Amino acid sequence: MEITHIEHIGIAVRSIEEQLPYYEGVLGLKCYNIETVEDQKVKTAFFKIGQTKIELLEPTGEDSTIAKFIEKRGEGIHHIAFATKNLEEALREIEAKGIRLIDKHPRPGAEGLNIAFLHPKSAGGVLTELCEHPE
Amino acid sequence: MEITHIEHIGIAVRSIEEQLPYYEGVLGLKCYNIETVEDQKVKTAFFKIGQTKIELLEPTGEDSTIAKFIEKRGEGIHHIAFATKNLEEALREIEAKGIRLIDKHPRPGAEGLNIAFLHPKSAGGVLTELCEHPE
Repeated sequence: MEITHIEHIGIAVRSIEEQLPYYEGVLGLKCYNIETVEDQKVKTAFFKIGQTKIELLEPTGEDSTIAKFIEKRGEGIHHIAFATKNLEEALREIEAKGIRLIDKHPRPGAEGLNIAFLHPKSAGGVLTELCEHPE
Repeated sequence: MEITHIEHIGIAVRSIEEQLPYYEGVLGLKCYNIETVEDQKVKTAFFKIGQTKIELLEPTGEDSTIAKFIEKRGEGIHHIAFATKNLEEALREIEAKGIRLIDKHPRPGAEGLNIAFLHPKSAGGVLTELCEHPE
């Protein structure tokens, strides 16, 4: 598996609207896309910084995994996503090395990417996502 | 203030040695530097991914802030660091916008950078570092 760059860093927030003055007004970043991923019960806001993005994650329901994360740990960094090529092959390679997968196969994520999560217990406590641009 | 890229993502770990098989053997990254920052009571290991780095942070004493973080929250993502130019000026600009600073002025960090932390309470729950390469 070859990781080319950090695709994004996911940050759990109670409200995207309340965070915009910090990300735009203080850090000087520009939100270029707000998108709801229905099956994840999450609203996302994206900011580009060089090769990488910040993805704010706001829960759209109380049973959203993001709502549960915030309830347990408060707002903050939720996951890190690495960009790779041939995600299906990467998952098989990782699984063969004994890493526990949350997603056995790629599924559609925000921004048209194919994504899969590794279990944080296998990844040093870090909820880790792999993504590929569909060709 | 202009942020040029994400300089690194800091991840708190109990043992760098125990994490190397995952970062090198599974993710295929290469650790290019291991460095101890005495005044922070932390041993750091760096991996380059495109424009960004992963910085593993291992406590070197029980009173290290990283030891306290792990005790409270477990291993995982600790902070995000943005690269900027003219850090002193950036801190004054941010402070004038009402953001609480942990470091009022730049101080030396790992890898020869000047760094300063913003308080997570002012930064949507994210422990946020700003860094500049000294000119």
